Amino acid sequence: MRQATHKLSIKTSTRGLKEITADVADWLSGQSMKTGLLTLFCRHTSASLLIQENADPNVRADLEAYFAHIAPEAPGRYAHEDEGPDDMPSHLRTALTQTHLSIPVISGKMALGTWQGIYLFEHRARPHTREIVLHLIGD
Amino acid sequence: MRQATHKLSIKTSTRGLKEITADVADWLSGQSMKTGLLTLFCRHTSASLLIQENADPNVRADLEAYFAHIAPEAPGRYAHEDEGPDDMPSHLRTALTQTHLSIPVISGKMALGTWQGIYLFEHRARPHTREIVLHLIGD
Amino acid sequence: MRQATHKLSIKTSTRGLKEITADVADWLSGQSMKTGLLTLFCRHTSASLLIQENADPNVRADLEAYFAHIAPEAPGRYAHEDEGPDDMPSHLRTALTQTHLSIPVISGKMALGTWQGIYLFEHRARPHTREIVLHLIGD
Repeated sequence: MRQATHKLSIKTSTRGLKEITADVADWLSGQSMKTGLLTLFCRHTSASLLIQENADPNVRADLEAYFAHIAPEAPGRYAHEDEGPDDMPSHLRTALTQTHLSIPVISGKMALGTWQGIYLFEHRARPHTREIVLHLIGD
Repeated sequence: MRQATHKLSIKTSTRGLKEITADVADWLSGQSMKTGLLTLFCRHTSASLLIQENADPNVRADLEAYFAHIAPEAPGRYAHEDEGPDDMPSHLRTALTQTHLSIPVISGKMALGTWQGIYLFEHRARPHTREIVLHLIGD
Repeated sequence: MRQATHKLSIKTSTRGLKEITADVADWLSGQSMKTGLLTLFCRHTSASLLIQENADPNVRADLEAYFAHIAPEAPGRYAHEDEGPDDMPSHLRTALTQTHLSIPVISGKMALGTWQGIYLFEHRARPHTREIVLHLIGD
């Protein structure tokens, strides 16, 4: 049994879902781990992680519109507005989605379903560099 | 330290919460693992996982009604409607709940609280067979 | 490779986010684990876990107000009201947040971002003692 860790840096340009499945799979394939558990951890409170369908791009657009609707920018509604109107909604959208994901590794690959992709969900309007820590344990 | 994996197939008949605690516990008890970490991973984007109260069935009914309300079917609202009006709401309800769960194993059993049950949350109207990957590590 | 488990007991006085980062870090530092995976599991269905910003206390207040708004107390709306008007909303708020968190451990410390704190989110109005199971694996 052994472990490996890695820091993935992802540049985002604005709000929205950015697929990172290939970045994660690339690192994993270099680890020669046959069976194990892979954990992704997002080191931010205004960006989050999500596993969603990666076939029809409309799903991504609908998801983004939905979270904009359910946790809206609303100047004056939130006490925390230090960094602008997209500040507090970013924390809310993070709270409603995931900060970490754990995915079993079988036969050297993530056990994702046919239509599942891993997404970094950027909630801020301006560009950011996001750090995702990867942890792998297995053999 | 050792690992074990398993694929659980769960048949659903329509939308709703289906308890799978016993299915998971049955597999776990066959592994003779005293201490460890059990991870469940749902290989779908229109069904999800949830730990909830398994005492009063009204909790389940209220949860189902709530998610129908907060992420409603609304023909015309979503761009992604390929598979009907329950298609996009299924993705939204999945995004708001869990694709994976990790539960510590202590003294050979999942460390669930007294009232906690594990549920597969089917979001599609028609019957499906859902695959849940189980991963166990420990000794 | 080795494992350790622990039960953390947290007393809450009423609804709201209570930071438990130091409680978790204290236990972790006694384990002399350099690299690993730490999992927190909340053994309740009316309290949950959340990683959020721990700098500006307004974030906490805004989060609490948001969940009160999105999953409101509404006497008569829910079938499950056995323990009062805060009963079912507690289950809904738990469903929308996390029952478990997994955090990589690197150089002996949780790989949290600069502004990330771990919170127990109490959803009931009256005081409770909440049990959080900690599981650590690594070396």
